[in-house]
This record gives sequence, C-alpha cells and structure tokens, in this order.
Amino acid sequence: MNEKKVKIREVGPRDGLQNERQWIETEDKINWINQLAETGLSYIELTSFVHPKWIPALADANEVVKGVKRNKSVSFGALVPNERGLERALQVGIDEVAVFLSASETHNRKNINKSIKETINILKPVVYQAKLADKSVRGYISTVFGCPYEGNVNVQRVIAIAQSLLELGVDEVSLGDTTGIATPNQVEAVLQELARKISLETIALHPHDTRGTALANVFAAYRLGVRTFDGATAGLGGCPYAPGASGNVATEDLVYLLEGLGAQTGIHLERLVNCGKWIQNKLKRNLPSHHLQIALASENKEGFHQ
Amino acid sequence: MNEKKVKIREVGPRDGLQNERQWIETEDKINWINQLAETGLSYIELTSFVHPKWIPALADANEVVKGVKRNKSVSFGALVPNERGLERALQVGIDEVAVFLSASETHNRKNINKSIKETINILKPVVYQAKLADKSVRGYISTVFGCPYEGNVNVQRVIAIAQSLLELGVDEVSLGDTTGIATPNQVEAVLQELARKISLETIALHPHDTRGTALANVFAAYRLGVRTFDGATAGLGGCPYAPGASGNVATEDLVYLLEGLGAQTGIHLERLVNCGKWIQNKLKRNLPSHHLQIALASENKEGFHQ
Repeated sequence: MNEKKVKIREVGPRDGLQNERQWIETEDKINWINQLAETGLSYIELTSFVHPKWIPALADANEVVKGVKRNKSVSFGALVPNERGLERALQVGIDEVAVFLSASETHNRKNINKSIKETINILKPVVYQAKLADKSVRGYISTVFGCPYEGNVNVQRVIAIAQSLLELGVDEVSLGDTTGIATPNQVEAVLQELARKISLETIALHPHDTRGTALANVFAAYRLGVRTFDGATAGLGGCPYAPGASGNVATEDLVYLLEGLGAQTGIHLERLVNCGKWIQNKLKRNLPSHHLQIALASENKEGFHQ
Repeated sequence: MNEKKVKIREVGPRDGLQNERQWIETEDKINWINQLAETGLSYIELTSFVHPKWIPALADANEVVKGVKRNKSVSFGALVPNERGLERALQVGIDEVAVFLSASETHNRKNINKSIKETINILKPVVYQAKLADKSVRGYISTVFGCPYEGNVNVQRVIAIAQSLLELGVDEVSLGDTTGIATPNQVEAVLQELARKISLETIALHPHDTRGTALANVFAAYRLGVRTFDGATAGLGGCPYAPGASGNVATEDLVYLLEGLGAQTGIHLERLVNCGKWIQNKLKRNLPSHHLQIALASENKEGFHQ
C-alpha cells in the first residue's frame, strides 16, 4: 500500500447538482462530466436513481449515464435508493453503486421516510444484487457528526451502522458531516473509536465546508490514516438546511490541501479549476471553491454579481 | 498558564478595511468598532498610521482612535510604519502598537520601498519609543510561508527576522500567510523550527483563507502550542494579489474552530456574527465569513446579489 496515495471521490454531478434549482440541460451535464473525466479523477458519481419526484434536478439519470464517454481510468458511480433504482442503474451501465442512510433516526425518517432498521433491510438486496453484478458499493452515512434535528449523534450508533453496511457487502463507508458542524478533534474522536472495530482503509470522509472547517477535518482524518475523501468540483451543492451557505468542500481545495500534505491525488488541479469555471458559467452565480475564485480574480473577472 | 485560553487579535477595522475601495464613513467605523468591543474580543486593531497617500481607506485614523468608546477589557491597537506614525498614534491615544515588515526582500521592497535591514533600522526607534510609552508592541512578518514574487521563503530568514524584532523589544510576533498558500504540514515545519529558538508563547498566526486552508493551519498551530490568532470579522479584507478572492480568515469561523477544539476564546459568537452582518450591510456585498452566510441564509436572506 502506498501510504501517500489518496482517493478522491468526485460527487459534484450527483451531490452537487441534486439540490440545484436551475435545470441543467442533459447535454451540459454530460459535457461537464466528460471534462471532469479528463482531470485524473478516478471516481465520478454521475447521478442518482432516486425517483425524479424527489430529485427533479437529476430526472435525466438514464440519459446522463448513457451519454457519458467511457474512460477506463475512471469509475462511474450512481446513487441508488432501492432495488428498483439499482435495476435502472444496472440497465444503463454504471461501474459502482452508492447507497445511503443516516446515523440519526429523525434525519433518516425526514429524508427517506423509513427507520434506520427498515432502511438497512431495504439496502440488503440492493447490495447483494450489486455485488452479484460485480459492482463496487459505497455506503453513505449522513449526520455522523451531528444531526440538525437530534443534535449529538452517538458514535457507537455510527459504528453499528457502518458495521451493518460492511456486513451487507458494502466496500467503502463514507462518513458525512451533513451540516458541516464537525471540528477536527471530533473527527479524531469518531475515527479513533471507529478504528477499534473497522479498518480505516474502508472509510471515506465526506466533509462539508458550511462553517469553514472542511479542510481542517480532512487534515485530521488524513493524519489518522483515512485515504479517501469526497468533494464536489467548484464546491457545488449548498447545505440544504441553510440555502446560500456552502455544503460540499470544493474538490480543487481538497486536492490543494492533500498535495500540500504530501499526498498523491493524481489530479491535475488546473484542469479541475477549469471544470469549475465551466459549471459556474453555466449556473451564472459564484460558487464557493476558493481556487475557482482565485482563478477568476487573477483573470480580472470577479465572477458574477460582484 | 491556562493551556486552553487563546487570544484572538481582531484586525478587521485595520487589515480588513485597508484595501476597501468604498469609503466607509468615520462614524460608521467607530460604530462598528464599538459593537466589536462588546463581543468579548480582548484586542482590536483600529486603524493604520501609514500615510493616507498609501492607505486612503484609513485616512481618518486620528478621528477613529479618538472616537472609539474606551473599554477596559479591550486593548486598542494601531499599525505604525515609522516614528512619525507612532507619534500620531500616541498623540491620539492607542493602547498597543503594531509594526510590520516582510520575510521576503522583494515583497518588503514592493510594500515599503526599503530593504529588510533598512526596515529593521526604521523600526528600532519606533519600538523603543513605544516601550518607553509603556505600550505593548506586536510585529507582523508577512510572506512567512511563501512570497508572490520570490516563491519559497527560507525559514531561517523568518527566524532571524523574528529574533530581530524580539531583540528590539517587540512582545509578540505575528506570522502572516499573506497569500494564503500555507498547508498544515508547512505550518508545523516552520513552527517546529522556530520553537528551537523562540518561545511559541510570543508567536501569533495570521492565516489567510485564500485557498480554504486557514482553519486547517490554525488547527496545526494550536496543536503545537500557538495560542494567539489573528482574524477579521466577516472575513473582511481580500487578498491584494487576487481581488475578489478571500484574505483574512473570518474571526467568527476562527472562534468556532477554536471553541470546537476545546479552547476558550471568551468571545460571544452570535454577537460577532451580528457585527459581521452590520459591516456586510454597510459594504453591500457578500463577505466570505461562513458563519455570516449561514446566519443570513437561515433568515432566508441569501445576502446580496444572489
């Protein structure tokens, strides 16, 4: 194992765009994903097979997956909520499957109208079928570091859910700081407790930069041995609990930090920044990525609405 | 010594406003500073006594210092470049003096048209007179982690400059990441080398969030024992090398991180966020503070120009 090698999971096309109010044309999504695939990213989450009633912004999931140019160096994933979603995803041909649930009972119920236990039962055949089809599966756990409804989330509950996912056959568990409230000591505490039961090689961190702490949390996790991190190019994807505030950490900023720490991301930062410019231009509003704003500023463009 | 107690140096009224293109009325500056003084901050840098030809935004230094309501729990500082500036500052009555120079010869020359050695000679009588007047003196060293003209900056040069300042009588040396390029391992490397010669009790970190790494760098420095940090409320003060990109870390975000780490800042976060709202409202554009943007979003105001 190369200790300096890190895996970046690009979730911009799915997690970044899913709450987007503006409709992005399918051909634009495909064009943008094709650009992202040329930056050195090894994983791109293309879309979601959640019913379009719930995520209208990604109603063109089939067309997006079919339209993207395949590239052997990139694994293309999609989010699926249940067996029906998996079936659709497998039909159009995805490389990886992502499933999701919450560490907080209230958040899980608000999000998918099921208890955590019910959700795990729903995911069981999904993961089974996905593995039968020889797909890697990642499992997102949200509200790991706190819940907007319940407040504190017990780390033992997080560990139990992660263990359940791994027992189902999930290959990688991504710990989500859904509302961006984590600080590095909390990240350390959760990871240290988790590491007593689960190898950190199977763990990813999904940081949100809502309070500016995303890269501090990534630094803490990297130091403890986590080598997989989720980001969204341009910092796409606001926090659903605070419209206007930032959500996903920008992949560009994540790459800068990790390379600065001596890690190898394999990503061409300038190309990634160009992908950020492209999507900002499409959305016609300033996006939170620091590197994107520096690049626009140095071209004497101050972005939109400044 | 209480190991959890940290000192926050609020530099918004000086470092935040100095590059501001809009003229802020003197009474507004005073009003804002009076609000900041009620948040629990123990130090506020009010203004600069650099000649108004160079910093027109702070041309009302005398009036601001005279107008601010004094408060025994807050020390009010001002930046002075030379003996003439110190004389003006002492005449109107400041509590602390701040001097500055750069760790990079080219940056120092571009900034103040002098060599580093010449600058230290200029600062010698300034610090001497300030100490005679019984004032604390802080010394800013900029471009500690890299220079926009020279690139890498030798840490031994930083140490030598810090030692020169301390020998002159400076009480606290603030290490500036002027262009916001530092990553936490670099912060650690500089501080560890520095700590071999200089007590970290006399060291402050002045992080910039240009690339989103400010709080990661603060975390690294805090873990190594640094207990003094500079911030600007609302994240005021862009990076002069990339207009539109962020500069100073927002004091609100800094407080959130440090309190999350178990540190005691003594600052009332909500009041500080209200100070951020007030100045954003005055400047009529979105400022980079994460906490400010969350607060505005949760009021269903998405700030300006969104």
